[in-house]
Amino acid sequence: MKQRELRRLLEGVRDGSADIDTALERLARLPYEELGFAHLDHHRELRRGYGEAIFCAGKTVAQVVEIAERMVAYGHTNVLATRADEAMLEELASRVPARVHGDAHLAVINPVPSASLGLVCVCSAGTSDIPVAEEAALTAECSGSRVERVYDVGVAGIHRLLAHAELLGSANAVVAVAGMEGALASVIGGLVACPVIAVPTSIGYGASFGGVAALLAMLNSCSPGVSVVNIDNGFGAGYLANVINHMAVEAPPAGS
Amino acid sequence: MKQRELRRLLEGVRDGSADIDTALERLARLPYEELGFAHLDHHRELRRGYGEAIFCAGKTVAQVVEIAERMVAYGHTNVLATRADEAMLEELASRVPARVHGDAHLAVINPVPSASLGLVCVCSAGTSDIPVAEEAALTAECSGSRVERVYDVGVAGIHRLLAHAELLGSANAVVAVAGMEGALASVIGGLVACPVIAVPTSIGYGASFGGVAALLAMLNSCSPGVSVVNIDNGFGAGYLANVINHMAVEAPPAGS
Amino acid sequence: MKQRELRRLLEGVRDGSADIDTALERLARLPYEELGFAHLDHHRELRRGYGEAIFCAGKTVAQVVEIAERMVAYGHTNVLATRADEAMLEELASRVPARVHGDAHLAVINPVPSASLGLVCVCSAGTSDIPVAEEAALTAECSGSRVERVYDVGVAGIHRLLAHAELLGSANAVVAVAGMEGALASVIGGLVACPVIAVPTSIGYGASFGGVAALLAMLNSCSPGVSVVNIDNGFGAGYLANVINHMAVEAPPAGS
Amino acid sequence: MKQRELRRLLEGVRDGSADIDTALERLARLPYEELGFAHLDHHRELRRGYGEAIFCAGKTVAQVVEIAERMVAYGHTNVLATRADEAMLEELASRVPARVHGDAHLAVINPVPSASLGLVCVCSAGTSDIPVAEEAALTAECSGSRVERVYDVGVAGIHRLLAHAELLGSANAVVAVAGMEGALASVIGGLVACPVIAVPTSIGYGASFGGVAALLAMLNSCSPGVSVVNIDNGFGAGYLANVINHMAVEAPPAGS
Amino acid sequence: MKQRELRRLLEGVRDGSADIDTALERLARLPYEELGFAHLDHHRELRRGYGEAIFCAGKTVAQVVEIAERMVAYGHTNVLATRADEAMLEELASRVPARVHGDAHLAVINPVPSASLGLVCVCSAGTSDIPVAEEAALTAECSGSRVERVYDVGVAGIHRLLAHAELLGSANAVVAVAGMEGALASVIGGLVACPVIAVPTSIGYGASFGGVAALLAMLNSCSPGVSVVNIDNGFGAGYLANVINHMAVEAPPAGS
Amino acid sequence: MKQRELRRLLEGVRDGSADIDTALERLARLPYEELGFAHLDHHRELRRGYGEAIFCAGKTVAQVVEIAERMVAYGHTNVLATRADEAMLEELASRVPARVHGDAHLAVINPVPSASLGLVCVCSAGTSDIPVAEEAALTAECSGSRVERVYDVGVAGIHRLLAHAELLGSANAVVAVAGMEGALASVIGGLVACPVIAVPTSIGYGASFGGVAALLAMLNSCSPGVSVVNIDNGFGAGYLANVINHMAVEAPPAGS
Amino acid sequence: MKQRELRRLLEGVRDGSADIDTALERLARLPYEELGFAHLDHHRELRRGYGEAIFCAGKTVAQVVEIAERMVAYGHTNVLATRADEAMLEELASRVPARVHGDAHLAVINPVPSASLGLVCVCSAGTSDIPVAEEAALTAECSGSRVERVYDVGVAGIHRLLAHAELLGSANAVVAVAGMEGALASVIGGLVACPVIAVPTSIGYGASFGGVAALLAMLNSCSPGVSVVNIDNGFGAGYLANVINHMAVEAPPAGS
Amino acid sequence: MKQRELRRLLEGVRDGSADIDTALERLARLPYEELGFAHLDHHRELRRGYGEAIFCAGKTVAQVVEIAERMVAYGHTNVLATRADEAMLEELASRVPARVHGDAHLAVINPVPSASLGLVCVCSAGTSDIPVAEEAALTAECSGSRVERVYDVGVAGIHRLLAHAELLGSANAVVAVAGMEGALASVIGGLVACPVIAVPTSIGYGASFGGVAALLAMLNSCSPGVSVVNIDNGFGAGYLANVINHMAVEAPPAGS
Repeated sequence: MKQRELRRLLEGVRDGSADIDTALERLARLPYEELGFAHLDHHRELRRGYGEAIFCAGKTVAQVVEIAERMVAYGHTNVLATRADEAMLEELASRVPARVHGDAHLAVINPVPSASLGLVCVCSAGTSDIPVAEEAALTAECSGSRVERVYDVGVAGIHRLLAHAELLGSANAVVAVAGMEGALASVIGGLVACPVIAVPTSIGYGASFGGVAALLAMLNSCSPGVSVVNIDNGFGAGYLANVINHMAVEAPPAGS
Repeated sequence: MKQRELRRLLEGVRDGSADIDTALERLARLPYEELGFAHLDHHRELRRGYGEAIFCAGKTVAQVVEIAERMVAYGHTNVLATRADEAMLEELASRVPARVHGDAHLAVINPVPSASLGLVCVCSAGTSDIPVAEEAALTAECSGSRVERVYDVGVAGIHRLLAHAELLGSANAVVAVAGMEGALASVIGGLVACPVIAVPTSIGYGASFGGVAALLAMLNSCSPGVSVVNIDNGFGAGYLANVINHMAVEAPPAGS
Repeated sequence: MKQRELRRLLEGVRDGSADIDTALERLARLPYEELGFAHLDHHRELRRGYGEAIFCAGKTVAQVVEIAERMVAYGHTNVLATRADEAMLEELASRVPARVHGDAHLAVINPVPSASLGLVCVCSAGTSDIPVAEEAALTAECSGSRVERVYDVGVAGIHRLLAHAELLGSANAVVAVAGMEGALASVIGGLVACPVIAVPTSIGYGASFGGVAALLAMLNSCSPGVSVVNIDNGFGAGYLANVINHMAVEAPPAGS
Repeated sequence: MKQRELRRLLEGVRDGSADIDTALERLARLPYEELGFAHLDHHRELRRGYGEAIFCAGKTVAQVVEIAERMVAYGHTNVLATRADEAMLEELASRVPARVHGDAHLAVINPVPSASLGLVCVCSAGTSDIPVAEEAALTAECSGSRVERVYDVGVAGIHRLLAHAELLGSANAVVAVAGMEGALASVIGGLVACPVIAVPTSIGYGASFGGVAALLAMLNSCSPGVSVVNIDNGFGAGYLANVINHMAVEAPPAGS
Repeated sequence: MKQRELRRLLEGVRDGSADIDTALERLARLPYEELGFAHLDHHRELRRGYGEAIFCAGKTVAQVVEIAERMVAYGHTNVLATRADEAMLEELASRVPARVHGDAHLAVINPVPSASLGLVCVCSAGTSDIPVAEEAALTAECSGSRVERVYDVGVAGIHRLLAHAELLGSANAVVAVAGMEGALASVIGGLVACPVIAVPTSIGYGASFGGVAALLAMLNSCSPGVSVVNIDNGFGAGYLANVINHMAVEAPPAGS
Repeated sequence: MKQRELRRLLEGVRDGSADIDTALERLARLPYEELGFAHLDHHRELRRGYGEAIFCAGKTVAQVVEIAERMVAYGHTNVLATRADEAMLEELASRVPARVHGDAHLAVINPVPSASLGLVCVCSAGTSDIPVAEEAALTAECSGSRVERVYDVGVAGIHRLLAHAELLGSANAVVAVAGMEGALASVIGGLVACPVIAVPTSIGYGASFGGVAALLAMLNSCSPGVSVVNIDNGFGAGYLANVINHMAVEAPPAGS
Repeated sequence: MKQRELRRLLEGVRDGSADIDTALERLARLPYEELGFAHLDHHRELRRGYGEAIFCAGKTVAQVVEIAERMVAYGHTNVLATRADEAMLEELASRVPARVHGDAHLAVINPVPSASLGLVCVCSAGTSDIPVAEEAALTAECSGSRVERVYDVGVAGIHRLLAHAELLGSANAVVAVAGMEGALASVIGGLVACPVIAVPTSIGYGASFGGVAALLAMLNSCSPGVSVVNIDNGFGAGYLANVINHMAVEAPPAGS
Repeated sequence: MKQRELRRLLEGVRDGSADIDTALERLARLPYEELGFAHLDHHRELRRGYGEAIFCAGKTVAQVVEIAERMVAYGHTNVLATRADEAMLEELASRVPARVHGDAHLAVINPVPSASLGLVCVCSAGTSDIPVAEEAALTAECSGSRVERVYDVGVAGIHRLLAHAELLGSANAVVAVAGMEGALASVIGGLVACPVIAVPTSIGYGASFGGVAALLAMLNSCSPGVSVVNIDNGFGAGYLANVINHMAVEAPPAGS
């Protein structure tokens, strides 16, 4: 549509029906996005194979179902519907092809087998952190990463974590999910050379302040290579881990 | 003095020069502390051999020197003058017998050899935490505890800490001093069975908020047996570690 | 299993089927915990007689029951199930042998008479703090400590507390449980020579900010010998008080 | 001046030179304060004998001196210049009649003997709180109250405070000045029946957060009868204590 | 009881059956409170006519009813049961003589006509603040103060407040109840000479943070004579206003 | 009424039945508001055509209905009832003429066609911000502004926003509604020359802290021309945008 | 330059030397800004007569002088250099034509008489707030607004403010500058119908927390029409007030 | 050393001089780190070519120089000394071979030409953010990454940023450095597909709270692919960007 407009303008310049000053003026006023097809293509290409996502919290069941149906109609696969409660997941599953992961509060819509490239490790400090960890793990898996889960390896029993040092050392990205004092990210950051994506969780009580204690601990990590996403943001961590993992396993174009 | 008053009152009752109702009335009004010699004695006994302390921050050099001189005059030994700057320490050393520990910003006034009982381990996460750690270590030492220092064993290189697991395991109390993400306390808490006294330090920058990140992490420690003192409060931690250590090494009275 | 692997490796070295460099290499890569049997034994020994605990908050009834059943099957006794709601306590009691303490929101699973050594005093400022105080008291009792409760002795009526000064003075550890302004810990800290473990509670309203006011007051206690655990963490305080109490009543090994 | 205008308007109405609608209109538009002589008089009367004050922080020496000179010229006595540094106090003293209290960072300008009615007790928890306490005490004294100082009676040694219970019990208002954990206000609030004005101070370190810990503790005081002013606001507390003290000692007009 | 013990001790001293050193020893150990009859009497006298209160929040209906019944049995009158929900108020009213004030979430138990001395003004900024304001007003009324209510006079329409300036000016204490920006206290503080007790309320949304905005505003009031109680603490403000009001209307003993 | 009193006073002065000093005295005591008719008139005039509003949160259905009925009876039109839940909106619609906007949680009571002057643009970052955005948009519309909605143009896809740059550039005021990181306001502030009113919303999770993250971002906007209202305060933003819009489209009186 | 490129491209299309598809492709890739001359012009036009500004804080004297010299070279007039310390202002004045306002920490570079249209009122609560208020006032003046200053009218003496009600009522925008409790904005918001731009200042102590108390109060203003800028942001407020003032005084183009 | 011990143990096993059970026992007790040579080697290999760093803040000049001299002696190259003040940088440069970057407060010790692989883009919102941005850029450069700087592209002038969209789109990692409202990270996150590492800076004033506003905005970024490091942590961001960049440009081992 917009391209057509633009084409017509250029045709007018070629034909002489539009003078150059007028064309300059109009071009200056055309919004960028409407010219932006190449950019969009580029984005689409970059994201190929990555999990699309519907953030369900704060949406009605009807809205989520409608979005899901439209995405299925467009042929999107492995679409994540995150932060959905049980009722929403049930309704989704009855309306579109979906694989439900109740423990992670999400569904994979139009699920297809995805690639399983490289390695992303998702670690959790406690069992209560598993829902957030699963959100991260499933996001990375649906986006084409091989994922290994290392759960319940909090630093109060450091040996549990060290038992997995070799596995962690072979990952291209590690997601460290922890509430309470959030020390897991620092300890892992000291064990591995790849990027560690820390996810503070709201698990805890009293002076955990809904995840603030873990968040601050992770931001202050004394291990370089650790970066942090928002409290409980398993999706963001899984998304980023997958991007890094793909960068590591895909041969770069020559000369990059 | 106050005892004398009280004794005179009782003598008056015995002699009949004071009637019982008047005595009752006066006793009800006598402030508790003025009766409190037993309590004071008891306290003094409990504290025997422990380091007395002068908190110097916010006091003038003149005030600190005067207090120190008076304590020396009373025969107190191993009196700690904590949080003193260099000028104050110099002046102190020129006026009273004192052993100066510039790195810990303190002096031991009227120093005498103290006992070296049991074992207190003082650990620090980084080299910048050492001034606070030394305050803890010297406090415990001056109060009669044997102290082992395990410095620069932050969790980013967990192997450094694990190398000292056996030593830590033989302590009666461990002081864990850490700034930044404060994870050290949790990891130690998972390694030892004795009480761990966590000291958050104000070391760090940005979102460490002057020690708040470490403080919150320590309060949320997933390891039982960890308790926390105020930010940078090395004295408090050393004091408490020494109390616990003495409880462990002193044979309790029969029947306790 | 892991010991078996290790034994096989050493046998290979002895037999000459594995050369030393290869063995060195493999040993360097074996995770620590998998070697860690001695450590585990040591821990178990240290914890002997102490209350094990299941933190029920955030777990389903089914999960808690399953853990409880497994612990009963393994022969654990006096296992604490803390932070359980009424329904969970009822279900637990109908499935495993359990003594329910509804006021403290906990159950003692597989209850057996425990030792009653030394003395731990648990004080609360108000009646609303009693659930947290009971969590502390029962934890210490199940772990083998004699416990005296001194409840509703907030500093607004300081005489109530002073009436118990003698009892407090004979304890090996005092747990001070208080919400609102949390001043109880400081006042007790000034009365006794043993460690005081302060537990801020979320009791209060307005500017108590769910226990923050009490937490800050306790961290800033002007009495040495006071340390603090997380808001409402009665279990942690009772656990620590019991550890200290046992250290005080158990004769140390010679030469410690 | 403004009264003169108003009088002229009314005279115009009386004389017929101004019609009533115009007068109504003008009256509706005359700003309230310009009518406000009675109010001002009333205020002045109420405040008679109370200390006027110049808040010096954030003002230049020149500004403070000018204000002081003008107030002296108007005949004001016992004017407090608070929060002045040493240089400012010196300059003030060289320019206007003034009694300097360096420890309280204030000067009393044009000092005259003031009344010494009733009783205000000013208590401080520690010696570091004395500058704020002195600001309160001198404010009340300059305003005509008898003031008793009870300093260094922090709750870590509760007996020191109880020794003064009788004195406190005879006051019409108590000012409780404390930093750190701020427990002093609650304990005093439990001892006396008169209003307690709590002043948190910025004295402390670490998690005292510049007085926030004491402020929160005081706001959450479990003793009724305690109210709070801003951190370090000795002037405000002394002002209020004096107002209450005067209300108590002055016989009310009949029928009030 | 305790007096009896003490009397017996003194009689022993008089009779010679107890020697003075033993008596001294025992006196030093007798808890203060148990001697404290005079103090208690004194307190009771000071509180004569004041409203006793039961803080119902966090108590069960059964507990509140039991306390209420006991207080009625002891003959207490005008006992306030504050922060009670509807069900609790209903149950109370069916079990003890009580006057229920649903809007203030409280009941007056064993209500009798109280004195109506002096004047306390209770102002509220908005209609939503009225429950807290009523708690203050009823507390003062039950304690013997005459109370005038000036509601919905927030500073957005300053004329509404100024219309009551004369009434406010004749009060012995003003309670200023406001949420949102809490400016009411400062404006009133500028209008009156008597103490202003500011009560921040949790009314508001967004950046009011449950009353923090109003609390901070009130603590920073630029009007001297303003002090602050905890968020939503209507009872505390009413209690304090009544104390001040009584001090103003009661002729002091000669020479005070 | 009040005017009548005042008129009578002036008539008394004119007639000589009131002397000038008495009149002065009375005038000084008359509360300002009671003189304030001109002010009130002026206000009413200024507000002519603007939406009146009932803030329903914290009011009962009965209270809201009664207020609505009275405003209808007085002939007010386009009265906004904001922050009403579904039940309240239903009840309102059944009792007074009302147009319900469930998505914005509000109703327009006694709706009449309003003017549609100038241009206010209301932008939202996400779909979850739409309820707040609609509150702003409907407020401005009911007050006589033409409103264009530009929703779901968050900065994560900056092209979506730039596509509307021309529309935004023609507005007299832009309302920027955003939760999460709140960056929308800064970006718009860089695109337009008119005032931008930023509304942080409580949309988000974790470290959004109920809108604090967006609020701080907006306050720190690097674009001049941006100002901020309270979190979720769509009404306030719409009200202010309408005022500015009317100032822009209404020809000022000569000489202003 | 960029326009030249674009022109050449269009000329190529006209000449047939560039085909349309290639042109489309290139246009899609040309960054928006490089096309953005119209936008820039438009902006420049909108800003005509407004004060440009150099934010000096965090820049070196050399940097500020260089920027100033370049702006003078380009012929900019009335350029504000804000937040400059004394040394910087002196240096500036010695290098470029400048009018220095030391009290507001700013200089007007290349000063020329500006228009004095409409009316902006700048109010301050206290004398300490004047530097921020002057930054606002001078910004608006340099941008072509007539400015009236109403200083030291804090709400503690509400009559001082009310005396200026008429002046405030005739402004097109009011800037309310206040620290401490920040109540000034709400009171003014209740007096005027035009937009009120609230500027919290960092003036205060203790619980003012560097302006947070005033900021929160202003965000929670119960008066509609009030919006807020960052703490101490006098420039932002003056800029915005001037924009609104110009919108009010400039006749809009027909049909807007 | 430790390897030697271990080797001797294994030789004992081979020789039969040590039996397997004793060896098992000893191995279980050997601290992990002392076995950890392979791990260290592995780490060293992974880090090859990466910049080592000395965090200078909180260290004395003497300490920093000594560390630097030792690292030079060991042959380390491109060692970063970060957060050094001018005096420290001067002293360093006079003692070891060093390239000083005063603007970034760092020196590169023993500088050698490093690889310049892949592409890392470092963007800053304002000129004041450049020191932190340079710390990031130099860290990545010294570690072997090609770095492009895109400075002063804050979102208030979004066109400046969009002009660099193509460059950003070709990076393997983007570091987004911003203070104030921190919106830059979100906007970039919406433009690129590679990981964005957000660095909040302490640049700003008022409600920026030393970087908290930017930190929160970045954590709440609505763009997936954004993660955050501590305030002002340029080193951490540069380190992580380089790791990711190297993962992207280095061909992975087959089968990974």
